[in-house]
Amino acid sequence: MSSARNLSLAVRRARLPRCRSYARPLLYVPSVTPARAFSVTPAARNATKEVKLTSNAYPNLKRNPNFGEVSVEDVKFFKEVLGAESAVVDGVTADAADDIEPFNGDWMRKYRGQTKLILKPQNKEELSKVLKYCNDKKLAVVPQGGNTGLVGGSVPVFDEIVINTSRMNQIRSFDAASGVLVADAGVILEVADQYLAERDYLFPLDLGAKGSCHIGGNVATNAGGLRLLRYGSLHGSVLGLEAVLADGTIVDSLSTLRKNNTGYDLKQLFIGAEGTIGIITGVSIQCPPRPKAVNVAYFGLESYEHVQRAFLKAKGQLSEILSAFELMDGRSQHLVNQSTGNNFPLEGDYPFYCLIETSGSNGEHDMAKLEAFLEHIMEEGIVADGVLAQDETQFQSIWRWREGITEALSHLGGTYKYDVSIPLNELYQLVEDCRERLTQMGFVGDDESKPVRAVVGYGHMGDSNLHLNVSVRQYNKEVEKAIEPWVYEWIQKRNGSISAEHGLGLAKKEFIGYSQNDIMLKLMKQLKDLYDPNGIMNPYKYI
Amino acid sequence: MSSARNLSLAVRRARLPRCRSYARPLLYVPSVTPARAFSVTPAARNATKEVKLTSNAYPNLKRNPNFGEVSVEDVKFFKEVLGAESAVVDGVTADAADDIEPFNGDWMRKYRGQTKLILKPQNKEELSKVLKYCNDKKLAVVPQGGNTGLVGGSVPVFDEIVINTSRMNQIRSFDAASGVLVADAGVILEVADQYLAERDYLFPLDLGAKGSCHIGGNVATNAGGLRLLRYGSLHGSVLGLEAVLADGTIVDSLSTLRKNNTGYDLKQLFIGAEGTIGIITGVSIQCPPRPKAVNVAYFGLESYEHVQRAFLKAKGQLSEILSAFELMDGRSQHLVNQSTGNNFPLEGDYPFYCLIETSGSNGEHDMAKLEAFLEHIMEEGIVADGVLAQDETQFQSIWRWREGITEALSHLGGTYKYDVSIPLNELYQLVEDCRERLTQMGFVGDDESKPVRAVVGYGHMGDSNLHLNVSVRQYNKEVEKAIEPWVYEWIQKRNGSISAEHGLGLAKKEFIGYSQNDIMLKLMKQLKDLYDPNGIMNPYKYI
Repeated sequence: MSSARNLSLAVRRARLPRCRSYARPLLYVPSVTPARAFSVTPAARNATKEVKLTSNAYPNLKRNPNFGEVSVEDVKFFKEVLGAESAVVDGVTADAADDIEPFNGDWMRKYRGQTKLILKPQNKEELSKVLKYCNDKKLAVVPQGGNTGLVGGSVPVFDEIVINTSRMNQIRSFDAASGVLVADAGVILEVADQYLAERDYLFPLDLGAKGSCHIGGNVATNAGGLRLLRYGSLHGSVLGLEAVLADGTIVDSLSTLRKNNTGYDLKQLFIGAEGTIGIITGVSIQCPPRPKAVNVAYFGLESYEHVQRAFLKAKGQLSEILSAFELMDGRSQHLVNQSTGNNFPLEGDYPFYCLIETSGSNGEHDMAKLEAFLEHIMEEGIVADGVLAQDETQFQSIWRWREGITEALSHLGGTYKYDVSIPLNELYQLVEDCRERLTQMGFVGDDESKPVRAVVGYGHMGDSNLHLNVSVRQYNKEVEKAIEPWVYEWIQKRNGSISAEHGLGLAKKEFIGYSQNDIMLKLMKQLKDLYDPNGIMNPYKYI
Repeated sequence: MSSARNLSLAVRRARLPRCRSYARPLLYVPSVTPARAFSVTPAARNATKEVKLTSNAYPNLKRNPNFGEVSVEDVKFFKEVLGAESAVVDGVTADAADDIEPFNGDWMRKYRGQTKLILKPQNKEELSKVLKYCNDKKLAVVPQGGNTGLVGGSVPVFDEIVINTSRMNQIRSFDAASGVLVADAGVILEVADQYLAERDYLFPLDLGAKGSCHIGGNVATNAGGLRLLRYGSLHGSVLGLEAVLADGTIVDSLSTLRKNNTGYDLKQLFIGAEGTIGIITGVSIQCPPRPKAVNVAYFGLESYEHVQRAFLKAKGQLSEILSAFELMDGRSQHLVNQSTGNNFPLEGDYPFYCLIETSGSNGEHDMAKLEAFLEHIMEEGIVADGVLAQDETQFQSIWRWREGITEALSHLGGTYKYDVSIPLNELYQLVEDCRERLTQMGFVGDDESKPVRAVVGYGHMGDSNLHLNVSVRQYNKEVEKAIEPWVYEWIQKRNGSISAEHGLGLAKKEFIGYSQNDIMLKLMKQLKDLYDPNGIMNPYKYI
């Protein structure tokens, strides 16, 4: 055994204390970017200044002249249907600019719409009346949940009416025998998960925006998140849906059955449709038992090739208890360090870091598996150094090195975000190629004259899902042109996906052709026309 | 502690030896009803005698007069397109009655069609030409894989052309890093699983017909099977599909990506559509690592209430390693005993039995969890007695007590089969209510004058999926009328599903209204009309 390996092992032994098995309520504390992360930091505000109207930023987009404009009479009708004062934010017949502003913009300050009306129906019947009316009058609408999206999917482009789900926020039922939760679309993900935590169950989805996003929005965007590797896609875990179509038809398919082979599985069409064929009002979802023990380890690795080897070993050895395998490059971790001021978890500096989480029903068994795995990957020289959380504080602190990246980037100014799926062996190559390209073009540097501060890569290794982020001092058309469509062509050559989990929204609409062929697009448009012949549902976006 | 409990525990200690951890290749040997189980036993042949033509058994079904009839010219065209001699079984221009017979009937001998032409395209291009031609000439078709279905979905009703997938039988690719398999639709499930076994992976689906069924048929019928509890639904694990629509359009969506949010997830529509909107030619599927250790235990329990308690405990304590929780009633086990002559696994006689399987990556850990679980449920008096397989022979032998039920029933004559989902707390009540109803009506008894031999219940407890089987000396309209629609009304009252995993086919078509409301049915018919306006795809069935 080489001395380097001995050294690594010695370091590991010193730094990988035995993890205690936490009591459950303390455990699995949501690894959440808190809701405030969605507020805009001063630096970012400065960098982006006034957010351009989307209609100006996308001059090719023209308001559909077939759409009606909201009239005083329309507002009167909506107020009658929705009853409660708080259900309508009315900028049509009154001055409500300040109240409306948050609904017109996104947290990244990239998109800015011009709606004058927000409607908050409380149930499917109210929503049905609203949509039928809108469809008859050709009034365009935008469904909006927690408005935490990254592709401009939940804000208006022009004057579309915002239909916000925040008043549909009740948990309807939970069956402790089957683990099936039925809840309104507007329930906040973290609220649902806490409700389940009290019953020893877990929501089978976790993501940074947990504190703000709505489960209806999660389903409408087919959110993936941190633990898809373990708990699978929403296409598998959502058992039933309730939704309202453009013409007001209420689709009541809130089955709570795991198996139901009686006809086309129509609910699947709504999962990931981003509100373009209907608005989800209720969700029935299969929830797994909450793990009794959760461990998290953090590693430094010398190359991406080492990361791939570590992942294969983790899949083989941790198998059924592996709940996350996250990749962060060195640059991303330096940014988190600068942003938080926290000490690095490891002493050395490495080009790659991984976060591995296990979740299981027996803390001792999990720790034994994890230790055997660590021993193995250290001895084989796959990882160079590592730490293992030994209490809940450390657990949270390690996760922050992964989850803090988005916030760290937001402190620097604007970020061009690409959320892509690429076959594992080339996953990180995209970051290197992009960095090289922008550097050669003279865009990257530490001095203020250079538009690009950093090109970083991180993501869900376990799902072949990379987040390529290009941090800019301010949004810059030249940089954008250097990246797009180059990045999409790069992905297309590898049969990857130009949107792994963030969806299409407005940002990716025009690039879908890089991941879907003409026949698929034709079939998709055929479906859109079938369900929304007037095109009022979330227009200008998606396909 | 009561003496009964002491006794049980003593029995358990004597009868639950430590399970050895098998070497992998021996392990997880497919728990399969062998292909020959689909042949018809002499008793069954006698009971059902000549199989009635489906058109006679369902006199209300009339051949659609819009459909064309296959002509000599058509056959010539098909022979040209498909080339190979073996690709066409031609009963139109030649006498091929014997060769055609197996394609016209099902293994249960319930359905009998009248096709005169079998086509076996070898790839999507050939199939595309065939379907386009059929659509233009309004020639109806029936897709057929391994023809192992239970609802008459894969056999013709009248003279529909059978399109058999057996010549599309190539494994296209497998990526050992991601675990993604891409294969032709006609690959036999067991072949795919054995291919994966050699690479330490597992097909995420297992069912009795494994030795005969095609993976394309599994996807088209959204098969559930024995380990859905662990590996989830095909809606989650199928990553991509290739299919041909009625008009010959080739839908190429064979993505191998776990995450891909670029537009409507159209492939989902084909999963469970039973070939009514297109024919699947290729499948891309996410496969889990093959477990290194598999254990199986078999219990006797005093009541269904005990079974429910055992299931909840298993979910909580075995959690991530629980891979099957099967329920068998006492009657079903007596039938297996009579059919196989094997000794019962337990000494006592119990009203209920469970089979619990664990699959994990560490044999010692799994055994420790299983032993703690067993200790707990014995001490709590939840189970009365049990055995644990200690070698592969015992593993197979225990599974046979669950998987041999179908075959045991087939030896007795005809079987009315109901495959339903019901909330767990009432799952077995259906069997009791059905048995009581048929008994009160004077149908049940041991003497030859009684049409019903037995009313048995078994199924996938872990998925709330019950198989209610009514074994009859011969198929009997009076008995059928006593069961239907009573059984469907019973299920409807509990918001259950009248077809959990077997699908609709011809058998359940007219009963879909018990599990789907009018709006859902309308939306389904709208989709059918969109994709198959001439209605040539698997007509007379499904919705």
